[in-house]
Amino acid sequence: MTTLNHQFRLARRPVGLPQRSDFDYAATPLQAPAEGKVQVQVAYVSIDPAMRGWVSDSEDLYDVPMAIGDVMRAVAVGRVTASAHPRFAVGDSVAGILGVEEYTIVPGDNLRKIDPALAPLPAFLNALGMPGITAYFGLLEAGQPQAGETVVVSGAAGAVGSLVGQIAKIKGARVIGIAGGADKCRMLTEELGFDAAIDYKREDVAAALRQHAPKGVDVFFDNVGGAVLDAVLLRLAVGARIVICGAISQYNNVGAMTGPANYLQLVVKRATMRGILVRDFAPRALEAATVMGGWLASGQLKAREDVVVGLEHFPETFQRLFDGSHNGKLMLQVAP
Amino acid sequence: MTTLNHQFRLARRPVGLPQRSDFDYAATPLQAPAEGKVQVQVAYVSIDPAMRGWVSDSEDLYDVPMAIGDVMRAVAVGRVTASAHPRFAVGDSVAGILGVEEYTIVPGDNLRKIDPALAPLPAFLNALGMPGITAYFGLLEAGQPQAGETVVVSGAAGAVGSLVGQIAKIKGARVIGIAGGADKCRMLTEELGFDAAIDYKREDVAAALRQHAPKGVDVFFDNVGGAVLDAVLLRLAVGARIVICGAISQYNNVGAMTGPANYLQLVVKRATMRGILVRDFAPRALEAATVMGGWLASGQLKAREDVVVGLEHFPETFQRLFDGSHNGKLMLQVAP
Repeated sequence: MTTLNHQFRLARRPVGLPQRSDFDYAATPLQAPAEGKVQVQVAYVSIDPAMRGWVSDSEDLYDVPMAIGDVMRAVAVGRVTASAHPRFAVGDSVAGILGVEEYTIVPGDNLRKIDPALAPLPAFLNALGMPGITAYFGLLEAGQPQAGETVVVSGAAGAVGSLVGQIAKIKGARVIGIAGGADKCRMLTEELGFDAAIDYKREDVAAALRQHAPKGVDVFFDNVGGAVLDAVLLRLAVGARIVICGAISQYNNVGAMTGPANYLQLVVKRATMRGILVRDFAPRALEAATVMGGWLASGQLKAREDVVVGLEHFPETFQRLFDGSHNGKLMLQVAP
Repeated sequence: MTTLNHQFRLARRPVGLPQRSDFDYAATPLQAPAEGKVQVQVAYVSIDPAMRGWVSDSEDLYDVPMAIGDVMRAVAVGRVTASAHPRFAVGDSVAGILGVEEYTIVPGDNLRKIDPALAPLPAFLNALGMPGITAYFGLLEAGQPQAGETVVVSGAAGAVGSLVGQIAKIKGARVIGIAGGADKCRMLTEELGFDAAIDYKREDVAAALRQHAPKGVDVFFDNVGGAVLDAVLLRLAVGARIVICGAISQYNNVGAMTGPANYLQLVVKRATMRGILVRDFAPRALEAATVMGGWLASGQLKAREDVVVGLEHFPETFQRLFDGSHNGKLMLQVAP
């Protein structure tokens, strides 16, 4: 009996928002792993902004772009179903860069084992995975929030943003989240302990910042870019630190990117804007996971996952990353 | 006999490039200084980008804007001609914020004495003044160039830029200047010791950077903004530091400012963009002046001044700040 491996392959490079027609849904016979490789049954696939870069052919990316015909690349967790690598055995839980498919065969050296006793598998794509490492080191190392300072985070209801705000609260800062929609804003203040939330879809962000951050913004952790970044630039405190984590508002631009027109406020306020990339913090991942795992266990930190069930829903789920409809870390459940 | 004090007053706020008609050329009887004040005969007036901010009514400035009818504010040096302040005597050489006029009466507490034995008066508006302090601390503290690194400076033939490049050379960096015009570029490489110069008016800056900075740009000291900043952003080395000192390309914009469209390269290259303001370094001015004075005396540092003679030429001289026709620190000689 041949097992078929269903998968999404890149059919063409998306122009603007990715469409279902940009992908082929295919099925190929499942192979055994060659020497040094491991066959992993994919359990959960993380739906990340980085994927938008992988399917484009820009030369200015952090990662090698995918080729047409490649299985869609994805950060994922799963279980080993066959192993030709000495470090991995059938049944091990693992995390790594796998594919949007039922099974991925991958060099064992590119996988890391995870301990499912510590937390459910989805947590390893969220607080104990890349979003957690990004939030933890991005905020604490690049943002350096001090107790009593005002921290603003955009994309605050997203995976990284919701963790950033909670870590800032744990460190004694006053925290304002910017998100789209009343439900998300309510979640930030009522469930996650943010001091204030600004609904950028309904509110004038500049006016709301004047109200909620009367002494200015000491740290801004930006996942969004565009008009939100420009509004915050006008409310910086002297010596402010802006951490640029991403710019979800800009990734599907067909035309030119929009830069922050108010960037000269960096001069006026002697402020710093620093870009961060999670891979720089990867060697210290265990440090973040240990601290964040403790906060999760004690209930100080709440991690939210928005799980869509079923591999076949990948294209619509990918679109949801950009339409603001998800609440917490967006992921796809491929196997239970 | 009444001495008349000729002066330029702000008649209206310039729209775009400042015009002669934006100023009134007036003469008022010279007064004696009141208690605590000093009467200074203005010798040299510094023509600075900051003046463009002072005559606008933007709320986002470092300084209080001038009111209509005010004497044009200027950083200047001069000699005390009458004193009602215990620290100053007739004949003292002084520096401070004075006016574009023949005599300014100013609180003595706002003046500092300068030693004309150290250097000619114009030097105190250049290497031993604000441009020198800006270049010295902006480059060394915010830019942190290391020996062997590649440093790029825009506005490289200007007051601050020409000092930045020379200081970077003294510190062992490879230095590329960006300036407008073949004469300026020749001056940078042949007189000031820059390793390379890029003429942004004739050359494709991105292509020239690929040639002159094959390993990327470690430090970028930006006085210009606009397209030049965007071009350098695409050539950053990992961990690059961008020092934002100003954006002369943007100050006369009637419409919106243009932000750096390529700012997400800060993420790709884990780079930092930091705004500096000379006033933060003012308490350490003596440190910079001492070191720079030594370099000037030994000939390691060359300071160039572009001196226009005659108070009446202020409006055209102010315009020259923006048309790129000056070579070195632009100033107006009001009295010999």
